[in-house]
Amino acid sequence: MERVASPVGFTEDELAGVRFGADGLVPAIVQDAGDGTVLMLGYMDGEALRRTLQTGRSWFWSRSRGEYWCKGETSGDRQWVRAVRYDCDGDALLVVVDQDGNGACHTGARSCFYRSFGTDDPSGAAGGPKAQG
Amino acid sequence: MERVASPVGFTEDELAGVRFGADGLVPAIVQDAGDGTVLMLGYMDGEALRRTLQTGRSWFWSRSRGEYWCKGETSGDRQWVRAVRYDCDGDALLVVVDQDGNGACHTGARSCFYRSFGTDDPSGAAGGPKAQG
Repeated sequence: MERVASPVGFTEDELAGVRFGADGLVPAIVQDAGDGTVLMLGYMDGEALRRTLQTGRSWFWSRSRGEYWCKGETSGDRQWVRAVRYDCDGDALLVVVDQDGNGACHTGARSCFYRSFGTDDPSGAAGGPKAQG
Repeated sequence: MERVASPVGFTEDELAGVRFGADGLVPAIVQDAGDGTVLMLGYMDGEALRRTLQTGRSWFWSRSRGEYWCKGETSGDRQWVRAVRYDCDGDALLVVVDQDGNGACHTGARSCFYRSFGTDDPSGAAGGPKAQG
């Protein structure tokens, strides 16, 4: 399925309601628009948030690499943004997306949250990347 | 419906896989076990995570108050933990819960993420607390 980007409208008042941390970042939860799976958590600064809203693709600030990245530009596992929500305190974002490709995780799993505490299941059926793929 | 707490099994190896930030905290996404709604985002340190796993109730570290809190002890909007997942990098948690009461948000909304960018809807139907409640 060929997906298209849909910019998300926003106002400066809405943007001003986001409270970035001392490091200039806010955590952004990414959720699948189709079935509600929580795919990953990334971080955005003001510029990454603006790019996300304006382009309809998910942009993050990589704390490890110290650079902006647009999810899927390298891997092809793109995220097409359908809504961006912000919480009561304005210090967390929820980005609802259509996820391309295998999924959001660099391991090949659909969700980065493929491991559970206490699932002593050697087959990995309860939480392994294959089961989530 | 009267719910009961179910401790979550864990191993020290699993706990050691969680990477806390420079502030000793890791973000914890809380998701509704029933319909997948993302309810809130809180922060846990090692002690809050252990309490969560051992008691089957969600414990967080309040950055503003500088203290531990067990969600719902005051409000009655308790969270009964059904699974705790951790991501590929070990620096984010996903806590799946049955949510008691009105919801997770102190505003009375079911989800803290009741506001969306660009939903210019004065009725609040698209994202207001009432619509989410």
